[in-house]
Amino acid sequence: METTATRIDISADLYRHLVGETPMPTLSEAKLRRLTEAIVVALGTPADLAQAVSDSLVGANLAGHDSHGLLRLPWYARSVRSGRIIPTARPLVAAYHGATAEVDGAMGWGQPTARLAAETAIELARQHGVGAVVAKHCNHIGRVGDYVELIARAGLIGMALCNAGPAVAPFGGYQRLLGTNPFAWAAPAGAGREPLVLDFATSMVAEGKLRVARAKGEPLPPGLIVDTDGRPSEDPGAFYAGGALQTFGMHKGSGMSVMIELLARGLAGVDPLLPGTSGLNGTLMLALDIPAFAPAAQFEAAAARLSEQITSAAPLAGFERVLLPGEREVLTRQARQAGGIPIPDSTWAEIMALARELGLNENQEQP
Amino acid sequence: METTATRIDISADLYRHLVGETPMPTLSEAKLRRLTEAIVVALGTPADLAQAVSDSLVGANLAGHDSHGLLRLPWYARSVRSGRIIPTARPLVAAYHGATAEVDGAMGWGQPTARLAAETAIELARQHGVGAVVAKHCNHIGRVGDYVELIARAGLIGMALCNAGPAVAPFGGYQRLLGTNPFAWAAPAGAGREPLVLDFATSMVAEGKLRVARAKGEPLPPGLIVDTDGRPSEDPGAFYAGGALQTFGMHKGSGMSVMIELLARGLAGVDPLLPGTSGLNGTLMLALDIPAFAPAAQFEAAAARLSEQITSAAPLAGFERVLLPGEREVLTRQARQAGGIPIPDSTWAEIMALARELGLNENQEQP
Repeated sequence: METTATRIDISADLYRHLVGETPMPTLSEAKLRRLTEAIVVALGTPADLAQAVSDSLVGANLAGHDSHGLLRLPWYARSVRSGRIIPTARPLVAAYHGATAEVDGAMGWGQPTARLAAETAIELARQHGVGAVVAKHCNHIGRVGDYVELIARAGLIGMALCNAGPAVAPFGGYQRLLGTNPFAWAAPAGAGREPLVLDFATSMVAEGKLRVARAKGEPLPPGLIVDTDGRPSEDPGAFYAGGALQTFGMHKGSGMSVMIELLARGLAGVDPLLPGTSGLNGTLMLALDIPAFAPAAQFEAAAARLSEQITSAAPLAGFERVLLPGEREVLTRQARQAGGIPIPDSTWAEIMALARELGLNENQEQP
Repeated sequence: METTATRIDISADLYRHLVGETPMPTLSEAKLRRLTEAIVVALGTPADLAQAVSDSLVGANLAGHDSHGLLRLPWYARSVRSGRIIPTARPLVAAYHGATAEVDGAMGWGQPTARLAAETAIELARQHGVGAVVAKHCNHIGRVGDYVELIARAGLIGMALCNAGPAVAPFGGYQRLLGTNPFAWAAPAGAGREPLVLDFATSMVAEGKLRVARAKGEPLPPGLIVDTDGRPSEDPGAFYAGGALQTFGMHKGSGMSVMIELLARGLAGVDPLLPGTSGLNGTLMLALDIPAFAPAAQFEAAAARLSEQITSAAPLAGFERVLLPGEREVLTRQARQAGGIPIPDSTWAEIMALARELGLNENQEQP
């Protein structure tokens, strides 16, 4: 993995697209990494922190979750300029209490903060069998699945949640009281298998999916949002005019969102409806060390057997096959690593405008 | 609270109903407790363990979750007779590892096993900030929400999950590979407020709701089950003929079910598709001690504020108001404690047949 980037390497093909000569190409992972790191560095970020941010954004694009990818950069830049993200701030472990710890994001980038929280949870779980870490003063951490995947790749079971927003109405209501409040859960699946990684917004979709629809000028599927008067809408604009996302899974998903909101507000002190912490991610992470509970071989055999049962199950009409949690992301990652990452024109225009503002266009390889 | 029961106190009204003279009455909580404890004791259970079982069953009926109430007694009796539940066995903490522990249910009743797991998680969390407990050789634990509520009433945050089944198809499939795999989560909401208690099956409904529909002779709402060929069905009989429940919340709920299944199989060693552990609940419980993460006053203020926001939110058309997690159960409990607990005729006939088999009818107060 590259450690830093100081210049953008935009291909001649891409440049020709930018000046309107060709249809939109896809970007390679390597180019996207260099571009993203260069922009984050140009915002005043030390190279190692910029790499953590870039890993998160590019990782989301690779996994097919464009809502948490490159799309976020202009918003991040505004947050740096407004002073909400302090690009040079470094997270630290502020306190340990038994098998728990408190990570202070110091209002720096959320991604390195969340990564430190995950690493600390692993360290605590290896020592105590279980570890729980709250991250405070923590900006947007990106795709939450990344951190539980990190825990699972270290051989442990990971769980993470955070709040955000407000953007979501509880079941039966239509006012924005909750964030999209993602919940993520991952476990190793044994040698030679990708970990199982579950990661979802407790809203019908992540707010970023609305941004993607708006960027593409596409309507939403029904059931995702209500407008400011509580009427169902398929126009992403109705959300940005003050409407609300609905929670997934009726009262069950709504209940999860409420519990996540309570834990994030209560433990991390992030209340999006109060001034001061709006826009932060109140984050909680847990790690469980498998051998504290059962022989590692038992867990591995169970994971292999369950994975086999699911991937070989007969599919319902309309499904090609049954997927494991995280398998779609693995397949998308493989496809995009091989074939490149498509970026919608409107997103790309914003990124290029940002790069120009930051004086990065002069570094282009080929004009 | 009564500590034991040696005789059934069936009212004259109820007796007249049983012999067909009156419409179905409702039972008082006290009578239901005495009846349930008497049956469980008559199955060979020590009084204190019988009370834990009765608390779980009657508590479920009070909360409105009849699927986990009295309805289960005939099945429990069959399990005792087949030797799968050893009614005299006592659970114990088999091992501690740091902030984790292993509870051995010793193939006794699941309810006292799960209660010991919750109490152990509380004890560990008070000491280490977080505690995680796996319960092995653990029979049916009843409503999982009870145990997280116990943790929340002790002032901590509780989380619990278990597998069961198999009864449920993963999203996109139609074979029974998963249990109904409930997930429960609770937190205290401050002085003078009931704790927030979330408790749901990751299937569209708990399997017991199908039993209730079958007992009442009612069709199911659409989308709950598929038959053995993967076709949607509204006949609860299609499930008992080998069909499968569907998971809630599309791929999200299915992913939760898969993760719960993996943890239960891998950590608790309960694989419903293998001989030997079918019918057991592979159970994992977590407790978080709030002061390890944040000042208790901060958490309490956040809980009060969020509760106020939700309960005072404007409702969507068709909703009377927005409810907190667990609030419906609190309201149902209040109503049933005041007005009695209705039991469907077919369930009641089974319970009375069981009581007769156990020689309990002779103890009736009024013939």
